[in-house]
Amino acid sequence: MTGAQFDVVAIGNAIVDIIGRCDDGFLERHGASKGIMNLVDTDRVATLYSAMGPGIEISGGSAANTAAGIASLGGRAAFIGKVAEDEFGCIFRHDIRAAGVAFNTPAVAGERATSRSLILVTPDGQRTMNTFLGISTELDQGEVDPAVIQNANIVYLEGYLFDRDEAKAAFRQAVDIANKAGRRVALTLSDAFCVNRHRAEFLQLIRSGIGILFANESEILSLYETENFEEAARRVAQDTPLAVLTRSEKGSLIISNGERVEVAAEPISKVVDTTGAGDLYAAGFLFGLALDYDLAAAGRLGSFAAAEIIGQIGARSEVKLSNLARIRGFIG
Amino acid sequence: MTGAQFDVVAIGNAIVDIIGRCDDGFLERHGASKGIMNLVDTDRVATLYSAMGPGIEISGGSAANTAAGIASLGGRAAFIGKVAEDEFGCIFRHDIRAAGVAFNTPAVAGERATSRSLILVTPDGQRTMNTFLGISTELDQGEVDPAVIQNANIVYLEGYLFDRDEAKAAFRQAVDIANKAGRRVALTLSDAFCVNRHRAEFLQLIRSGIGILFANESEILSLYETENFEEAARRVAQDTPLAVLTRSEKGSLIISNGERVEVAAEPISKVVDTTGAGDLYAAGFLFGLALDYDLAAAGRLGSFAAAEIIGQIGARSEVKLSNLARIRGFIG
Repeated sequence: MTGAQFDVVAIGNAIVDIIGRCDDGFLERHGASKGIMNLVDTDRVATLYSAMGPGIEISGGSAANTAAGIASLGGRAAFIGKVAEDEFGCIFRHDIRAAGVAFNTPAVAGERATSRSLILVTPDGQRTMNTFLGISTELDQGEVDPAVIQNANIVYLEGYLFDRDEAKAAFRQAVDIANKAGRRVALTLSDAFCVNRHRAEFLQLIRSGIGILFANESEILSLYETENFEEAARRVAQDTPLAVLTRSEKGSLIISNGERVEVAAEPISKVVDTTGAGDLYAAGFLFGLALDYDLAAAGRLGSFAAAEIIGQIGARSEVKLSNLARIRGFIG
Repeated sequence: MTGAQFDVVAIGNAIVDIIGRCDDGFLERHGASKGIMNLVDTDRVATLYSAMGPGIEISGGSAANTAAGIASLGGRAAFIGKVAEDEFGCIFRHDIRAAGVAFNTPAVAGERATSRSLILVTPDGQRTMNTFLGISTELDQGEVDPAVIQNANIVYLEGYLFDRDEAKAAFRQAVDIANKAGRRVALTLSDAFCVNRHRAEFLQLIRSGIGILFANESEILSLYETENFEEAARRVAQDTPLAVLTRSEKGSLIISNGERVEVAAEPISKVVDTTGAGDLYAAGFLFGLALDYDLAAAGRLGSFAAAEIIGQIGARSEVKLSNLARIRGFIG
């Protein structure tokens, strides 16, 4: 994997997170399903925001977090995603560039606002997302810069983008460009309910143009409509050359061309906020591939990055992960 | 002090903080004076923002932080300050109300934006503020609600508001209303350079209508144009019935009608970010007065609240201070 300008280009929703703390009773009273991503409309986002406690704003977005994580680890990352010309759009653009990620999708003026997610963190550190998908889902084909795709070793796609047709088309276009340029395409399923909404299309995409699939346990079970993890693992092995299945404290299982590699989870001293754990695992794993690590070493780098972000609020590491990874021996 | 609806009404700049980390070299390269509040214009705020690392957004503003701190300790607080009808204005309004502070100053539509402060935190935990004073300094007399002032035991004023004439007039009006209603008026000098800009007017105000003066060491030295702390302490004792002088790790000195009370600083295990330390000391001290504590006990509550906020990012406590204060025996 040489000659490319970027290790990874990520394509996904450009979102600013508004993170607050609440107890489980708050989630129940407001009908927010715990631990998942709930899509909410403008009225609902207003109701939840006025009911929740004080918040802090931190840039987020699943694939964007992965891009920022790769840059923090010392990799070369780019991001494609859509923001509006508003204050949250400025925050998103500033933060991802300041994190060292190339980002040049133009901001759009008009009625629709930059996407935001109210993230409610319960005392157990679990995060419940309530996402108002503003302009980010309107990413269209004109905004997928072919030059960026062609110049990245891996194109990484966020399943959440499947929630709108315009973005889905942009997504398919990116896969085509990458395949024609001989680049690898990675996909994360994002969320079990997202999988449920788009199962057939995801399966078709995985079987045709995807080289690396990321999924957590509930997502892969949802994809194959089974409650048996081993069955899901067996089936995904037939559908994709490289599947990376994350299982929280049970670690991760990497399956590639008949080889199965189990990676233990990193010990976590204090679960502060699980926001971004999956995104940062993907960052570590993809950067491991960029470093030509074997699957086990790439998985360990993913587990390390996930554990670090679980100890922080938000999904963007406040400290440079490359320094920590070096001290801990995960990178040279 | 009974019969009032609020323990304290605070009047000050309504600001959203954008907090990022940097090293000392960054401050030098950009000519930002370390440890103080630098007033910056729109061009400068844009330059600094694009040069600084990723940020997180948290509501701030000195007097607003004090009001939020009082509410967090279990007190009854109100805030008067001006925001624009923009996204940062929404954030400020949401957060202060969610913190339990009464806030009803109407947001204003138009060209001017809600005030913001780029806060750069160096590895030693010191904070350097670069404040873009948007609409908050345009607070005018119509926005000082006499009913709120009359219904608060103490009116707490932020010296920063002296930087604009409109706000200064609103400030004087609040002092008049409070004095006529027999309420106590407290003032914080805010910043040594702010004192330098308005020394004569501050002295006149302190000698006429202020019952409680808060100042840190550099502010009180600036006020009396001396380098001798004992001389400044002697002089302030002649100018005001109650002076509260904070001295960082040296603790605080409270001087009231000939009585001198020294309070030790609370031990701090890890200096994360000193943003809000003075604001939270004032919150603890003022809430101590509301609880009819003697000066030493009020000072200890102030030191406790300051120490807690130094261990967190930003100036708004993520945890309810009343619980901690109860566990630690500072409140009953």
